[in-house]
Amino acid sequence: MLNELSFAEAAAAIERGDISSEQLVRDCLDRIEARDDDIKAWAYFDPELALAQARACDTAGERKGSLHGVPFGVKDIIATYDMPTGMGSPIYEGCRPGYDAACVALLRAAGAVILGKTVTVEFAGMAPPPTANPHNLACTPGGSSSGSGAAVADFMVPAAFGTQTAGSIHRPAAHCGVIGYKPTFDTFSIHGVWPAAQSLDTLGLLARSMDDIELLSAALVGRPTRLERSAVTAPRIAICKTHLWDIVKPETVEAIEIARETLAVKGAQVSELVLPDSFDELVAARDIISSYERARATAHEWFNHRDFLSPQLQRGVAKGFAWKYEEYTHAMTVGADRRRDLDALFNDFDAIIAPCTAGEAPPDRNSTGDHTHIGLWNLLHVPSYALPTHKGPNGMPVAIQIMGRHGADDALFDVAKWVLEQLVPA
Amino acid sequence: MLNELSFAEAAAAIERGDISSEQLVRDCLDRIEARDDDIKAWAYFDPELALAQARACDTAGERKGSLHGVPFGVKDIIATYDMPTGMGSPIYEGCRPGYDAACVALLRAAGAVILGKTVTVEFAGMAPPPTANPHNLACTPGGSSSGSGAAVADFMVPAAFGTQTAGSIHRPAAHCGVIGYKPTFDTFSIHGVWPAAQSLDTLGLLARSMDDIELLSAALVGRPTRLERSAVTAPRIAICKTHLWDIVKPETVEAIEIARETLAVKGAQVSELVLPDSFDELVAARDIISSYERARATAHEWFNHRDFLSPQLQRGVAKGFAWKYEEYTHAMTVGADRRRDLDALFNDFDAIIAPCTAGEAPPDRNSTGDHTHIGLWNLLHVPSYALPTHKGPNGMPVAIQIMGRHGADDALFDVAKWVLEQLVPA
Repeated sequence: MLNELSFAEAAAAIERGDISSEQLVRDCLDRIEARDDDIKAWAYFDPELALAQARACDTAGERKGSLHGVPFGVKDIIATYDMPTGMGSPIYEGCRPGYDAACVALLRAAGAVILGKTVTVEFAGMAPPPTANPHNLACTPGGSSSGSGAAVADFMVPAAFGTQTAGSIHRPAAHCGVIGYKPTFDTFSIHGVWPAAQSLDTLGLLARSMDDIELLSAALVGRPTRLERSAVTAPRIAICKTHLWDIVKPETVEAIEIARETLAVKGAQVSELVLPDSFDELVAARDIISSYERARATAHEWFNHRDFLSPQLQRGVAKGFAWKYEEYTHAMTVGADRRRDLDALFNDFDAIIAPCTAGEAPPDRNSTGDHTHIGLWNLLHVPSYALPTHKGPNGMPVAIQIMGRHGADDALFDVAKWVLEQLVPA
Repeated sequence: MLNELSFAEAAAAIERGDISSEQLVRDCLDRIEARDDDIKAWAYFDPELALAQARACDTAGERKGSLHGVPFGVKDIIATYDMPTGMGSPIYEGCRPGYDAACVALLRAAGAVILGKTVTVEFAGMAPPPTANPHNLACTPGGSSSGSGAAVADFMVPAAFGTQTAGSIHRPAAHCGVIGYKPTFDTFSIHGVWPAAQSLDTLGLLARSMDDIELLSAALVGRPTRLERSAVTAPRIAICKTHLWDIVKPETVEAIEIARETLAVKGAQVSELVLPDSFDELVAARDIISSYERARATAHEWFNHRDFLSPQLQRGVAKGFAWKYEEYTHAMTVGADRRRDLDALFNDFDAIIAPCTAGEAPPDRNSTGDHTHIGLWNLLHVPSYALPTHKGPNGMPVAIQIMGRHGADDALFDVAKWVLEQLVPA
């Protein structure tokens, strides 16, 4: 079925004239019809609206751009002019912002079909969403980009937007077994993306192939695609267990150890990175920054619609308003200082591999799992991928996390692609 | 008339019970009625809505907060749930976003009365607005926070929001003769503020007294007010002419020279700062970043409503889409590197004084004037004030600009207040 094509494969097949956008979108819609009553990955989709976009691509005199005719999923905290944007909250159910977020407008301009809106945790926070994990419906798909992770993993759409403030891209990517890409902070335009915490929020991608990340990133930042690259040889990779190593589960220990051994055998220069103790402060600092900024960003809802916020979010906002301003500014300084420190450490290697989630998806849907291991790096603003390389004891996906130098997204792409190819041969 | 009170004076008078919020708001509304046909500072105001807020304050059992009952102006790129938000563009004329921007919700929670929406240049850009300069109706008030500058200067409202991407707070402050405050980048929540360029946009304040800045900043970031401060003695002040000194006008040369002499006489440790040549790149780098990011932020309007964008904005967006991605990332690196350099330079002094605008307001309304001198510092993300300290040859206001260390807004406040008191004795 065409819905199993990756975004890049589908784009190429449409460009060659092998398939039409309508055929591809129909197969995606059929998959959604068959599965979404169980998965609940979609907050909104209108088959006729999707098909109309597909037919417009098929009958256009010329290709609109590099994404011509390929469907894409949009996390439901991202504004769309032709579909409601509900933020996963009853306060904004059915709301129509009246414009496209920058990222949506840019994908449309490059020819993408906006298939629909994927379920977000309420305001990209921590309350459990209705979405199930496609690998085991009893498990959480992770969050807050829950619908994007589940829809991409379940072959309902080849790729989708996620946003990350702590672990909201990489956690659903890891738990659903797809690739998560969080660019360097401030890379993609954030206009039209409802905020959680402005100095952490990063727009990124979930997909099933590294080439999809390249194709979509190029369209979003406005550069040529570089799918033909020179092969990476002997990348310098640091394994970093972090100070949180004691709380990872055996499947993550195994994933990191297998990665270390396999990559060394395949020719990587593998070393161990022990972060200075000062990096231990990052988890608490990120938590302070995130809740302080979220409280401000949620001021309108807090003061006017508090009863419509989940208990989890109410606790988070109350916590955020309780921080002293000095505690917040100190946390901001910790983040800035460690960013400088990490940049110097990156002189000695090309990428860092570290735990992603603690382990495979928790076996229930009462939470979206743990974001501590991801959040630590998110405060450092460096680009990162969740790479689904292993399986856990219950047969659920397990990911490793790989980080690059601030701003060096392009170099990290090459290393991450090489790593994934070594660990999960085609 | 009560509309001539500063924000802090009005807040204190209401707290003492000397005046009511309704009396104050009525005097502001009367001033608007009398003057705004000429000035055109307001994009929207509804006297009944403003008076209803004032009466709610007057009849409340207890004070809502430190801003209780005092009216405030909101630049019309900032979302308000009970008033339209038009962005200065026909595309969004009459639009109602359905929520309050974080900054508006926080001011309301502290008791402020939202008087109305002040005119913004189209999407906070460069096209001339309808607003006139209160000191001479033939002159531009500056922009893009044109209505905020004019309304505060003309005693229609004690203080108002501005936003700055190049010079959009300090230029109207300088040309209208009020205080402009641009905090360290990322200090106030930007949620609900329509973006121009996400790595430059900064929300700030225009007011007629330094104490107003303190009172409003404290409410926005959530800290106690510090109106009783220990006096500054012998601040270390660097005069920085910048590489743009050749293009400032005689009135700005005079303003800087008088500041240098007066502050030295009053006890400041005044030195000269010659920036390294590498700082010369900042003007071009800011221009690239601003137009590159604006193009992305304007993608929806560009691809769907291009004919409703002004010729100026169309040129700006076209320019922004034309930059190569590498040119943008290089410009971002220039900004980050100079920020590090400047932080090291700040070991030797407490504040830098530099030109603000080239000179007094241009004598027509075909442009909003020059932002080069301000934009240079804006890319450096440091906190800054426009201080209206002098008059030009046509009797129009002339400002100096004063910058502090990144994150040291509190220390800069003390120095800026001292400087203003020395140069413009009460």
